[in-house]
Amino acid sequence: MIILGIDPGTATTGYGIIREDEHGDPVAVAYGVITTPPTEAMPKRLQHIYREVTRLIAEHNPDEFAIEEMFFGKNVTAAITVAQGRGVVLLAMANAGKIIRPYKPAEIKQTIAGSGNAAKPQMQEMVRTLLNLESIPKPDDAADALAIAITALQSARWERLTGEG
Amino acid sequence: MIILGIDPGTATTGYGIIREDEHGDPVAVAYGVITTPPTEAMPKRLQHIYREVTRLIAEHNPDEFAIEEMFFGKNVTAAITVAQGRGVVLLAMANAGKIIRPYKPAEIKQTIAGSGNAAKPQMQEMVRTLLNLESIPKPDDAADALAIAITALQSARWERLTGEG
Repeated sequence: MIILGIDPGTATTGYGIIREDEHGDPVAVAYGVITTPPTEAMPKRLQHIYREVTRLIAEHNPDEFAIEEMFFGKNVTAAITVAQGRGVVLLAMANAGKIIRPYKPAEIKQTIAGSGNAAKPQMQEMVRTLLNLESIPKPDDAADALAIAITALQSARWERLTGEG
Repeated sequence: MIILGIDPGTATTGYGIIREDEHGDPVAVAYGVITTPPTEAMPKRLQHIYREVTRLIAEHNPDEFAIEEMFFGKNVTAAITVAQGRGVVLLAMANAGKIIRPYKPAEIKQTIAGSGNAAKPQMQEMVRTLLNLESIPKPDDAADALAIAITALQSARWERLTGEG
């Protein structure tokens, strides 16, 4: 099973692709960020994000997708910008016709670090440990995307075990 | 010159297509709404909006696009949902490679009714008059989209007249 996790944004969209090994453990396949320059017009930036996510899907053929749910911060303008980026990511995922699992930040923290209030360094260290990496995956948005993908793998394993879904 | 105006949303996306007649006046070509059921998953709804806007563009081959800028209301959750829809509309527009003109609600009201605070019935009556229609275009989101398209035509005429752009 291969899962693509996305941490949506406009300037930086994090992605993390993991697969399940023979023991059911997550292994990092690829991770990184899609960046768009703030000097470019928003439609062009959205087009770039859409094309890159579509390319990642074509290249890695994930069985499932995972995406962070929107966090309603104080900065509504920033939230709206991120939401536009999230829209084109969801479109690319929908085009592939696979399961899309959305997770709240607290759910991801709970799954990865065992606490809905886990701090960023804790989360990153857990992602490193769970994926058996030598160092913390960089940049931060890529580590976040890997955390989202691992959360989805946990859900998928649980569903297989219990027959729930 | 043909202009496609979009009033973005998720449940209802309004569209209005106008052309410029030989006197430079706007004429309604087509208008309506793209609707998606709230029972459907968001990725599917975004896919539907994207496909319908892409189809409208292919059918009418507009020279320019116009879209309402996001209004940051009190309901952040609703704003984020609309922004996701706006993201896939901008993507469809960017794919066509034409000018995209974004307008704030107050700018549209100012252009159509001569006041940035114009009320909805006033705006709708002005859209009817400007397009020489027998009755007010329905539903409301379609009338809004026509107002956006007329605003863009005014901008385009002004640019031609002054050489500004």
